[in-house]
Amino acid sequence: MFYAMRHDLARVEERLREESNVDYPVVGDIVENLIESGGKRLRPLLLLLAARPFNYDIDELVAAAAGVELLHNASLIHDDTVDHADVRRGQPTLNSVLPPETVILLGDYLFARSAMLAAATMNPRVVGVFASTLAKICDGQLSEVFNAHKLDQSIDQYKQRIYGKTASLFAGSAEMGAIIGQAPGDKIEAMRDFGGNIGMAFQIVDDVLDLRESTDSIGKPAGLDLRQGTVTLPTMLFIQRSGQNGHNAELVQRVIDGDSATDADFDHAVEVIRDSGALEESITIAEDYVEKAQAIIKDLPPGDSVEMLEALAMDSLSRTF
Amino acid sequence: MFYAMRHDLARVEERLREESNVDYPVVGDIVENLIESGGKRLRPLLLLLAARPFNYDIDELVAAAAGVELLHNASLIHDDTVDHADVRRGQPTLNSVLPPETVILLGDYLFARSAMLAAATMNPRVVGVFASTLAKICDGQLSEVFNAHKLDQSIDQYKQRIYGKTASLFAGSAEMGAIIGQAPGDKIEAMRDFGGNIGMAFQIVDDVLDLRESTDSIGKPAGLDLRQGTVTLPTMLFIQRSGQNGHNAELVQRVIDGDSATDADFDHAVEVIRDSGALEESITIAEDYVEKAQAIIKDLPPGDSVEMLEALAMDSLSRTF
Repeated sequence: MFYAMRHDLARVEERLREESNVDYPVVGDIVENLIESGGKRLRPLLLLLAARPFNYDIDELVAAAAGVELLHNASLIHDDTVDHADVRRGQPTLNSVLPPETVILLGDYLFARSAMLAAATMNPRVVGVFASTLAKICDGQLSEVFNAHKLDQSIDQYKQRIYGKTASLFAGSAEMGAIIGQAPGDKIEAMRDFGGNIGMAFQIVDDVLDLRESTDSIGKPAGLDLRQGTVTLPTMLFIQRSGQNGHNAELVQRVIDGDSATDADFDHAVEVIRDSGALEESITIAEDYVEKAQAIIKDLPPGDSVEMLEALAMDSLSRTF
Repeated sequence: MFYAMRHDLARVEERLREESNVDYPVVGDIVENLIESGGKRLRPLLLLLAARPFNYDIDELVAAAAGVELLHNASLIHDDTVDHADVRRGQPTLNSVLPPETVILLGDYLFARSAMLAAATMNPRVVGVFASTLAKICDGQLSEVFNAHKLDQSIDQYKQRIYGKTASLFAGSAEMGAIIGQAPGDKIEAMRDFGGNIGMAFQIVDDVLDLRESTDSIGKPAGLDLRQGTVTLPTMLFIQRSGQNGHNAELVQRVIDGDSATDADFDHAVEVIRDSGALEESITIAEDYVEKAQAIIKDLPPGDSVEMLEALAMDSLSRTF
């Protein structure tokens, strides 16, 4: 589907590899491994596609696209440290093989390198979006930490949190692409909204997968959010349906509190949420975001860019890991 | 001495306070406390002074000056987490009152806000210097972590490390000031060198104070570097003098290794380094840097800016805490 993008994406990969080519050898090797281990490059792809209907400088675009991918990776590193996660994408995290102090500094170093890539665009507006996106990501992650183990949160609070943590980088990537493409103001705004909506869908699906899939298929422990006291949409919908009363609601409450829950309690809580229909309801909400995203790009001139943006929106729903 | 700068510095303070005025209340309060607790604002002062002989836009200058101070604070937060430090400037560190995951994210958040301040200058060159300075700081800190507990380091390696960790932000601050001041290329270069040299002096003095002063006067535990296995200039000079042999050199070696050293060993090691003349020799090296810095600004047109830059250079030697 994204065949037309392969050349530009290859340039982004090359630029990312250059970033791992640093003076300090130990750091260089670790960064290189991290970058090579991949992921789907969704954010660079979105950035490239958002510029494509317009008139862009490819060097500027490639630098920004590499920048958002590196920012994403830096953010994952600190996130894994915060979550004490040992496994991601089926691989051991840095966190599980290096002392935490080294991991913090490596994450900082990658933030710095990603900011250098944004700066390399020499475009002050791009840099502004980049920096404020980073602030939103941190804000969302902080909000998650401060709201852990609490069930008295509204769905709006959840949405605000995942917007910061995840959707803001999708929104920012699309916005940067459109800015570099010198799109008119309303189109920049539209691309930003498009990105934000698919980012929301992406995170909701992620939260569903955390509860739905087995450990093997998602490459990290199943039900991890619940085990960490992170309250996500399916859990909130489950509690709404069961009215905070009843035996199962009490179990989920206890599991979120975390104090006296056993492993069997966690497994059982995952099961009752799965069986309640809350996962399907969550997916419906994710689908609404994708529909909003698709409606937004309907106004763009038809062409393969729009088709690919539509496909990217659909992809945020259909992934299985 | 810096009376002429009080208005501009007050604007920097105001801008820093605005940064603590964030939507997310918990973070806002913590950031505000942190910023209010002060420090000497050396980096903003240097940035302001580096622009002063030239032709600058004050808003751009104030944003950049607030940015370097916030970057410095963000860096201290992660540094304290890395060092497991409980006290700084005589106050408990964030690290000692908040869980480490929260501290990591708060540091990230402040990095983001500092990058937003740099971006607010709308000056791509300033942003480029800002981002690459952050990368150098992380690189220097990583180097310190990777070289802990090792005595087989050259003084050049030490200098490279403290340049990254500390002097690069002094160099970058002065460079950004001169860029915003639209100084000619050679003057930008000169300001950068000036900043780098006083940054080197500043860090060497810091490393001397760590060994020379009592816990009360420096607001953190005396001999902390040694206790953490961080090898600094005085320790290196001490080892050079004692030829890696003899009873005292063996003691210092053991203390750096850290495995079997007792508290009494640490106290004794601090004492033998103090008594060896290595602290005085280190100060002489710091003085050389200050002389280099002063020689650099001799070429600038005379005036109160040059006088204040000279005073700032001297200050890096004379501080007692």
